[in-house]
Amino acid sequence: MVKQMDDESMMQNRTAFFISDGTGITAGALGKLLEHFPNTHFTQVRLPFTNTPESIKLAQEAILHATEKDGARPVVIMTLGDINLRHTLKQCDAYFIDLFNTFIDPLGLELNQSPLTGAGIAHSVMGSSYNERMEAINFTLNHDDGMTNSGLEAAQVILIGVSRCGKTPTSVYLAVQFGIKAANYPLIPEDFERGVLPAVLHKHLDKVFGLTIKLERLHAVRSERRAGSLYASLDNCRKEIAAAENLMRDAGIPWVDSTSRSVEELSAIILEKTRHHS
Amino acid sequence: MVKQMDDESMMQNRTAFFISDGTGITAGALGKLLEHFPNTHFTQVRLPFTNTPESIKLAQEAILHATEKDGARPVVIMTLGDINLRHTLKQCDAYFIDLFNTFIDPLGLELNQSPLTGAGIAHSVMGSSYNERMEAINFTLNHDDGMTNSGLEAAQVILIGVSRCGKTPTSVYLAVQFGIKAANYPLIPEDFERGVLPAVLHKHLDKVFGLTIKLERLHAVRSERRAGSLYASLDNCRKEIAAAENLMRDAGIPWVDSTSRSVEELSAIILEKTRHHS
Repeated sequence: MVKQMDDESMMQNRTAFFISDGTGITAGALGKLLEHFPNTHFTQVRLPFTNTPESIKLAQEAILHATEKDGARPVVIMTLGDINLRHTLKQCDAYFIDLFNTFIDPLGLELNQSPLTGAGIAHSVMGSSYNERMEAINFTLNHDDGMTNSGLEAAQVILIGVSRCGKTPTSVYLAVQFGIKAANYPLIPEDFERGVLPAVLHKHLDKVFGLTIKLERLHAVRSERRAGSLYASLDNCRKEIAAAENLMRDAGIPWVDSTSRSVEELSAIILEKTRHHS
Repeated sequence: MVKQMDDESMMQNRTAFFISDGTGITAGALGKLLEHFPNTHFTQVRLPFTNTPESIKLAQEAILHATEKDGARPVVIMTLGDINLRHTLKQCDAYFIDLFNTFIDPLGLELNQSPLTGAGIAHSVMGSSYNERMEAINFTLNHDDGMTNSGLEAAQVILIGVSRCGKTPTSVYLAVQFGIKAANYPLIPEDFERGVLPAVLHKHLDKVFGLTIKLERLHAVRSERRAGSLYASLDNCRKEIAAAENLMRDAGIPWVDSTSRSVEELSAIILEKTRHHS
């Protein structure tokens, strides 16, 4: 064990706490930055609604416990508006990243304003664009998988592609994260036989965006769903992908390969290409 | 105008840029912290995939343009792995919050590791728990609004409540943000007549969580959908809310009022109470 610890290339264990007087979602988002350190395995623990001396005490106990377990002090990313709670928490040993100290207070100096320090400011329903995002989620769920053609004029993006190429999770992510009304519409064997995009899309071509996917991946994903079916067969997948790409090419629809891209990446690319900057 | 600018209580305009060599989603999440400054109106501009000298130049031009428009320098929240691009960008005048300088590099010292600096580290499909989140999104969409009873044993949370109390957006948020398989199931007049929860829920009570909503709000939301209907009437809404709360109380189901809470807040409360810490 001692030998392993000396070896810089070995994984080390740390716990990352996200401690907030509100939802902890903003602090938690910074958890993504931990992926810049692939040689540390982080156990992530969220402690939302930490807004009383009692809950601070529980947080400190959790920090102590994690330190013993990992053999190293935790990383604590915190947003606590109350200055007394903040100071109390910091009396234990951890590597603290305090979003008030590092961001909010210095930004207040730049803006020449005192920040609000109440709990849960960042994720209240008062936040800008909240209703827009809720409407987008409802719209997107109602227009998943070509469920209805009515109301497509209100869509901001219409994703198309073969079955199981990633349209649904990408649409949902666009709605939840960016408040984009994202419909999605499958390209199916009937479309390939006719050799043209579904008629309902013709008057919305300016907001249609395509997803495609690599053969092996589509075969694998469809086999999970219906193993051994024609639908999942390599030959059918190959034909569908080629036919879908032909349809999109003929119609001048931009598209992107979803195979090795996350919904975050796909969404950012789609927003970029369709110029919906939030 | 000059008089207004002197008045501290007046709104000021600033532009907030989120500049990233990847999706810009982590930097963008910090945009929530701007809501601690309600006297500044921020125009938020995302510039993802800023990973070449040319795109840095475009970003600088956008910064200059915003400075002229607002009469004040922008706030720039940035994650650029490439140190040369980083330095180039900072040659223009703005209030820079550099996540490498303030977070990643100091954290590397704490961990005694050099951070990865490639673009888009944080939101690759390699990120921990990515597949889990995608599965959760599919599960949640397939189990929206009581669509199917099959597979409920795989649900981690089952939200219940009257029609239009916020079950769907909350379920979707739980799936997208936390990778929670969240089914939702409506409580409808037939349930109220029988006076018991739907039979399918009986064996899953340990993961059922309720949402309720205030009368005036439910009336308003339902009226938007079907104005003047019995469904939307104050009297019917009052009866449904009381009946739903009775059912939940009798069954010992915890519940929370969604009226003035965001999906972020509702999700954090539900995770807290059902002990799904991510």
